[in-house]
Amino acid sequence: MKKLLNDPLKAASELVDGLVDYYNGKVAQVSPGAIAMTDIADDKVALLVGGGTGHEPIYHGLVGEGMADGAACGDIFAAPPPNVILDATRAVNKGNGVLFLYGNYAGDVMNFKIAAQLAAAEGIRVETVLIWDDVASAPPTEKDKRRGIAGLIPIVKLAGAAANKAKDLDELIELVTNARDNTRSVGVAMAPGSIPATGKPTFELDDDSIGIGMGIHGEQGVGIEKMTTADALAEKMVDLVLADDLEIESGDEVLILVNSLGSTTMMECLIVLKKVKAILSEKGIGIYDIMLGPLVTCQEMAGISLSLTKLNDTLKPLWDAPCSSLGYTKL
Amino acid sequence: MKKLLNDPLKAASELVDGLVDYYNGKVAQVSPGAIAMTDIADDKVALLVGGGTGHEPIYHGLVGEGMADGAACGDIFAAPPPNVILDATRAVNKGNGVLFLYGNYAGDVMNFKIAAQLAAAEGIRVETVLIWDDVASAPPTEKDKRRGIAGLIPIVKLAGAAANKAKDLDELIELVTNARDNTRSVGVAMAPGSIPATGKPTFELDDDSIGIGMGIHGEQGVGIEKMTTADALAEKMVDLVLADDLEIESGDEVLILVNSLGSTTMMECLIVLKKVKAILSEKGIGIYDIMLGPLVTCQEMAGISLSLTKLNDTLKPLWDAPCSSLGYTKL
Repeated sequence: MKKLLNDPLKAASELVDGLVDYYNGKVAQVSPGAIAMTDIADDKVALLVGGGTGHEPIYHGLVGEGMADGAACGDIFAAPPPNVILDATRAVNKGNGVLFLYGNYAGDVMNFKIAAQLAAAEGIRVETVLIWDDVASAPPTEKDKRRGIAGLIPIVKLAGAAANKAKDLDELIELVTNARDNTRSVGVAMAPGSIPATGKPTFELDDDSIGIGMGIHGEQGVGIEKMTTADALAEKMVDLVLADDLEIESGDEVLILVNSLGSTTMMECLIVLKKVKAILSEKGIGIYDIMLGPLVTCQEMAGISLSLTKLNDTLKPLWDAPCSSLGYTKL
Repeated sequence: MKKLLNDPLKAASELVDGLVDYYNGKVAQVSPGAIAMTDIADDKVALLVGGGTGHEPIYHGLVGEGMADGAACGDIFAAPPPNVILDATRAVNKGNGVLFLYGNYAGDVMNFKIAAQLAAAEGIRVETVLIWDDVASAPPTEKDKRRGIAGLIPIVKLAGAAANKAKDLDELIELVTNARDNTRSVGVAMAPGSIPATGKPTFELDDDSIGIGMGIHGEQGVGIEKMTTADALAEKMVDLVLADDLEIESGDEVLILVNSLGSTTMMECLIVLKKVKAILSEKGIGIYDIMLGPLVTCQEMAGISLSLTKLNDTLKPLWDAPCSSLGYTKL
């Protein structure tokens, strides 16, 4: 695997430098791995996201107008340290509190919790909404054991719009919880990415096998199956999402996200989308909007995930609001 | 290589179906492989792009508000047939003529020329601006032998804004030629993509070699060299672009596009961007805006390209205009 790097051990820090360059003045680096918007309004309730690097454009590519106010990121595939999260919290806090919004991974939960305590000791109110959209990682009765995967894209977009209108942190928590609770995802791994520091694959998978529900780092899913067609896989993913405890029925409207885990092409994502849309349309489920592409990745991993967000009268205007970030922009 | 397909021979047509689904009502399919916006204003000078499929999001992902009015695409890596281009031309024509804007490849030039003649016979005025931004494919004195590569992204964005304000086709040609003549690119191939119908690689390249200036289908560049660091490659690409006949000097402002050819990660693009920006800044060249990501691809090909567009007082307001398409959106 040829990777365009300088020093593999400095990949995470160099990519954050490049990311700040890419934002071209809109964000400042406030700690190693942490960035914040430079022009956060004085009365704003702040939104902070974060997690490991190496999954670009998440998480630090989701900072922007109508998106997150800041992001705290760790080394490659590693949670951000508490002091980095604290620096980011200070940078985005405008006196009205900060919502931490991140995926449910043990390392992230631990470090964000410590940072929240450190912030509280400084008089900054911090609350948390955990993202746990992956239906394959635990049964619906144990949501707190589920991982956060690509559903974080629509959730962060909705949360960004919510943070622009929420009068206080309590209202923001309510809106973001609404978005989180109406989002479900399932992923399929086809081939591993590589670890930048070592060049080694992130997991092992036979040449003719795919991992249904496998996580973006190769975490256990619902099973290993033989490679199949785009249509069959689309059907399986829709079935897994619709079988979950979120009722999505005829007359409902959804956001669709067909996410590439890295090297899976837009061509393949489009062919899967075609089938997903056909199945949902046949069931009378309306398509409100669609996202597609490499938004939650694990280096050059091959695979795909499907996320559905069921919209309601609260979430629709949040979705309709324009937003701009490196990872997702909406006119 | 595991590819998510149904029938490899129907990949191009299935992906266009999925693309129309993705546009969710904004475009209609007007011929096999051709799409057009459904709400083109009655007095608009129309902009049509096109080329082979398999390079998504180009070309048919560049249709949208403030972008192209339509796109005519062929089979995987193949020029669109003249009748498909003609159907697309009819669909976008509102009586004020149509500008064909596409990359300088022999098959595309032949078929778009035939389509232009067929359209003229129907009383539709068609003019053409060829994109030939690749400095590695011929010397500056032979621009008409240069290929069109990733520079088409800023050129189509500028052209889309120009088509919204041009009073006639002549003004549009002038604006788009301005954008084209101020854009230069160079690409580097690291590993081939695969041909969907056969699974075979699009070209051969040693494990430790990269192709400087190699085209997106593996066309000859300026040389095969040993794999190197991100910084060294960034320096080489900037040197090749700045050595060309477009003078970019201290005090000038440029758009930067760091394009992934497919599986090259955002992390790698960001690390290259960091060095590109540092070199330009040291020379006193201002960075007006930045694009980055998999915009002109060849399946899961690994590699990168750098494009610079030198802005002037005519081009800046065109760049500033908002736009929305599947491939590129700007608030």
